[in-house]
Amino acid sequence: MKAIVSKQPFDLSDGNLFEEIELAPTALQPHEVRVKVHAIGVNPVDTKVRQSPMHTDFRILGYDAAGEIVEVGTSVFDFKVGDAVFYSGSNQRPGSNQTYQTIHTDYIAHMPKQLSFEDAAALPLTAITAYETFFDVFKISKNVHENQNKTILIINGAGGVGSIATQIAKAYGLTVVTTAGRDETKAWSLQQGADAVLNHKMDLKSEWDKLKLPSPDYIFCTYDTDAYYTQMIDIVKPRGHIATIVAFNNHQDLNLLKQKSITFSHEFMFARAIHNFDVAQYQIYLKDVAQKIQTQQYHSTRTKTLEGLTTDTLFEAHQAMEQQQFIGKLVIKVI
Amino acid sequence: MKAIVSKQPFDLSDGNLFEEIELAPTALQPHEVRVKVHAIGVNPVDTKVRQSPMHTDFRILGYDAAGEIVEVGTSVFDFKVGDAVFYSGSNQRPGSNQTYQTIHTDYIAHMPKQLSFEDAAALPLTAITAYETFFDVFKISKNVHENQNKTILIINGAGGVGSIATQIAKAYGLTVVTTAGRDETKAWSLQQGADAVLNHKMDLKSEWDKLKLPSPDYIFCTYDTDAYYTQMIDIVKPRGHIATIVAFNNHQDLNLLKQKSITFSHEFMFARAIHNFDVAQYQIYLKDVAQKIQTQQYHSTRTKTLEGLTTDTLFEAHQAMEQQQFIGKLVIKVI
Repeated sequence: MKAIVSKQPFDLSDGNLFEEIELAPTALQPHEVRVKVHAIGVNPVDTKVRQSPMHTDFRILGYDAAGEIVEVGTSVFDFKVGDAVFYSGSNQRPGSNQTYQTIHTDYIAHMPKQLSFEDAAALPLTAITAYETFFDVFKISKNVHENQNKTILIINGAGGVGSIATQIAKAYGLTVVTTAGRDETKAWSLQQGADAVLNHKMDLKSEWDKLKLPSPDYIFCTYDTDAYYTQMIDIVKPRGHIATIVAFNNHQDLNLLKQKSITFSHEFMFARAIHNFDVAQYQIYLKDVAQKIQTQQYHSTRTKTLEGLTTDTLFEAHQAMEQQQFIGKLVIKVI
Repeated sequence: MKAIVSKQPFDLSDGNLFEEIELAPTALQPHEVRVKVHAIGVNPVDTKVRQSPMHTDFRILGYDAAGEIVEVGTSVFDFKVGDAVFYSGSNQRPGSNQTYQTIHTDYIAHMPKQLSFEDAAALPLTAITAYETFFDVFKISKNVHENQNKTILIINGAGGVGSIATQIAKAYGLTVVTTAGRDETKAWSLQQGADAVLNHKMDLKSEWDKLKLPSPDYIFCTYDTDAYYTQMIDIVKPRGHIATIVAFNNHQDLNLLKQKSITFSHEFMFARAIHNFDVAQYQIYLKDVAQKIQTQQYHSTRTKTLEGLTTDTLFEAHQAMEQQQFIGKLVIKVI
């Protein structure tokens, strides 16, 4: 089996330090399956992990995949050889940038039948991030009707997380406003279901006020939290809730939350994996994604596909993520 | 009618700048009542407002009161002259440090019948703060049985908010651990219902680990948030929730919330009043307090009473709050 690895943390300006190696398959644990990886989703988090300190001789990145089960552990009953599955996995384990990956069944779900592997690989990490933000963090209702008077502002509606988050929020009944800076990102965000798109090049509070909507109950920041911190506090309703998935570059004044009694969350989809805490929830969320793909409430956010898992395609994918202009999701098709 | 006022922001080291003045009663708005104030609760927030910039000629502090209705507005139907009520009021309006106070009915509730005015005046602000933290912020269940596996750590269990918060959390089924630094504060906190009391002079994480309890779902900080910020992040469970009522002195690193995907809230009980948002919830919470006093699930947290509303008693009360050693609640009886 083939894997694309890095043997040291590196910046893209150092050149392409990805390497292709051959690995022997490991023995399966009782609750694990072995997956032949057909397609891999690439996310901004891959570029962060690539640059972080290493404690092993080499590292296999990749936190989104779709593929076919080729072997199951002795205690696996709900999956069988031949099943098509999708998952984002764990940052505590080797990732999906390899032709065969072993993974615990808590992390995987059956793929929506009508999707290609490439379309399926685009979804898990971003969808789980949005599900955790909506249901674990904001604690929105699973009952669509209870969300009809709720409004969410999603900062950067055309990004990977923003795109699927818009679809999910709409499916669960919220009014969704997003931000975008270009004609093509605005058009894409509307296509994901946004009720309105603010121009993030303008003052967001003034842009919001033009909508004549009540202040948003929730704000979900998927881009440059430092830049939006005070603006989000200014816009959110009293006792509202702000969540981000983007780490800060600076320390911030938490007292700004006080006057409106605001709640702030730092969503991180690997927290369950890191703390080995309630990880079966990943599967529960993926099952809901699959079900809503089948009923056509969600569609894949894939916009670009690179052919073949090589050091070149992986480097190209990392470049695309670091430019921070990408619309939707980039997928590598393993050939 | 008499009022104790200040005509400028001041520090206690400037001397006693409170003044007694006579005021003419104002006309009632349709939804207001006039209350003859019998007892006043004093809180740390009084000392903060006393020192804050002023935009009026004089200021009447005081955000807790119990008294008797002597006049009702034209649209008031649920309260009548002679009713005994308790409330904490609004920091946007003249406070309770006066013999007669006008107040909107959204802010008031009927007093528990078996309580004295002094015992009742000890409760509203601290109880509303704890209710907002538990139900608006942590969103704990109103169903006691659903909270049986939930644990809360309350920093400073013997303070005004910590004391009633302990009683409320116990009544709603949580396991409650508090912190205290002295024998008498530990004894008091146990008396409020705490299941265990940590010594806050020791490393809190080590103290917590001795309990052999799962990590707390919730941490409620009622003292020196800067000092406890990283400790709370260290102790709370993954995807747990921390709330504070104490403003920070320093900016903080919000990225520390990321690894466990932690939620942080700055609870401020005047947020509803400031934004005139959902203020009727104050009454709803006070009604639950009254009901649970009647069923003896809660008891008053009053520990000290000063006789007579004068510049001297008010100054003494502010001194006691600023020493930050007070156990339970201090009340001034208006004579």
